[in-house]
Amino acid sequence: MSAGAPVLALSGGVGGAKLALGLDKILAPGALTVVVNTGDDFEHLGLSISPDIDTLLYTLSGLADPTRGWGRRDESWNFMRALTALGGPDWFALGDADLALHVQRSRRLAQGETLEAISADFARALGVATRIVPMCNERVRTRLRGEEEGWLDFQTYFVRQRCAPVLREIVYEGAAQARPRTPLQQLAADGGAALRALVLCPSNPWLSLDPILALPGVRAALGASVAPVIAVSPIVAGDAVKGPTAKLMREFGLPVTHGSIARHWRGLVDALIVDVDEPGLRESCGDEVEIIVAPTLMKSLADREHLAEIVLQAADRICAVRAGRAAAPSSARRP
Amino acid sequence: MSAGAPVLALSGGVGGAKLALGLDKILAPGALTVVVNTGDDFEHLGLSISPDIDTLLYTLSGLADPTRGWGRRDESWNFMRALTALGGPDWFALGDADLALHVQRSRRLAQGETLEAISADFARALGVATRIVPMCNERVRTRLRGEEEGWLDFQTYFVRQRCAPVLREIVYEGAAQARPRTPLQQLAADGGAALRALVLCPSNPWLSLDPILALPGVRAALGASVAPVIAVSPIVAGDAVKGPTAKLMREFGLPVTHGSIARHWRGLVDALIVDVDEPGLRESCGDEVEIIVAPTLMKSLADREHLAEIVLQAADRICAVRAGRAAAPSSARRP
Repeated sequence: MSAGAPVLALSGGVGGAKLALGLDKILAPGALTVVVNTGDDFEHLGLSISPDIDTLLYTLSGLADPTRGWGRRDESWNFMRALTALGGPDWFALGDADLALHVQRSRRLAQGETLEAISADFARALGVATRIVPMCNERVRTRLRGEEEGWLDFQTYFVRQRCAPVLREIVYEGAAQARPRTPLQQLAADGGAALRALVLCPSNPWLSLDPILALPGVRAALGASVAPVIAVSPIVAGDAVKGPTAKLMREFGLPVTHGSIARHWRGLVDALIVDVDEPGLRESCGDEVEIIVAPTLMKSLADREHLAEIVLQAADRICAVRAGRAAAPSSARRP
Repeated sequence: MSAGAPVLALSGGVGGAKLALGLDKILAPGALTVVVNTGDDFEHLGLSISPDIDTLLYTLSGLADPTRGWGRRDESWNFMRALTALGGPDWFALGDADLALHVQRSRRLAQGETLEAISADFARALGVATRIVPMCNERVRTRLRGEEEGWLDFQTYFVRQRCAPVLREIVYEGAAQARPRTPLQQLAADGGAALRALVLCPSNPWLSLDPILALPGVRAALGASVAPVIAVSPIVAGDAVKGPTAKLMREFGLPVTHGSIARHWRGLVDALIVDVDEPGLRESCGDEVEIIVAPTLMKSLADREHLAEIVLQAADRICAVRAGRAAAPSSARRP
């Protein structure tokens, strides 16, 4: 596979967007496509909000707030102050500039445009060459059953209740009826033959990537991919970098280890990148999976680019090995 | 009529709101009700915007920008900047804090609440004791026929085209099918018997007050009011203070005089307050109308309160004269 060939990444929000930014920076403009989870999307104040798509848009355009982990840098909060004074709900913070994205998206959705077309326009307007594609245009909603709270909307759990509920069950409502968007259809159709790599970003596997895999045909397409599938473990130094990944794993009875991540992706990935080796890790994912130890904590842009390089090197190496295997019988026949 | 009796004012935006503020300041809290034009309301970016109601809310709560003539003081504009960067429409400026009103109203309207209930809640939340009541809950839209442009929505004419089109016709679409809100129903029912005064604020008669009078029964109720009806001419020093009133009058072939205003309100008002006397003014409105010359340019809060005092004095004087007339036959019978 040539170094200029396209790369497809599946991503949730913050952690995934960091690696996506690294890939965006080191790949040729337009070579990267990121398919983004929309299971976190929700309607708030009459607005259609797509948190993960927005995180990708802001991260790749350089507009993301560098410390907060969501929203835009240099943001102002006069809308929220005025809304609170009017007695409006204040549990989900919407910055003044951030609102433009939600208002414009809501208006265009109401006019019958697709989330895919709107997201592509936003990326263009913000100068992002990487394609940012929602996993589907239909409404899919990740819902969570709290031990005491019963079924919760994702943002109710994640923002309003700050991930406090003990989770017992996760469903991706509407996923079975949704139609994966073009890059995923393409993957299913050609097995990723044109791709240099298929990357599972270090997002929460259960909350951010599984909604994408729950769409019809996507899990099978990943498993059958001829392009190398490279996953980056979201566990760093034995914990989640941010968000409820580790807490959720404990609640589901899973050790907070790369082994648990490896078992989750078993049969789907060719390589798993982890920050440290673990005893028994190789056994967790089967012989066919390459374990790559590399720095996965991405603090600086250089960290992001470095990890992206490692991902692509792994993919290229796997490609080369496969090409060698495929070439071996014919070369054996030569004198 | 006692000095504590309720006052009902009909108002459009800026000019009307100035007098409404004067009345609000000098009357007992809650004694004033302002019925507000909603013919300028429109949908923009998927939001329901009620410019005149908002101007009243901001003016009476002290949040209005003191120089711009619309929107909130200490406003920020990050939403508009971000929207413009996304390729969104930029012809109607929405401040960051101002957006809270539109988002919250749109959401509540979509949930089936009435504009009247929402406006009352907003007034309460902003600490406004005066009742701010939309003229109706139904959709009424002032539409204007430009000589060259054909039919225009109000905000297209007013903001987008900066009142440039030469107007030939005005209609209040939906007015005949709308139901005037409670204070107007009450006026029609009891002839304003409980009111100290009924005030036509110095708003544009054609664009801001006539939409209210176009609602079923309102014109007749005004004409039959037993409460004194006091109008303040929007013409100051032979011109409009702000907005297209004078331009519109010229386009309709009307001299830009108090006389034209007087003729417009003929049969409806008991007194007209003007900034200067004009030759022939008294003949324009008929003998039954009192012409009061007083400073109507409201620059300071003191100006607003002073004009409000003059309005109420006129109403009280007319009431006293009527009471005297009514009392005259019986006192004549006394020795």
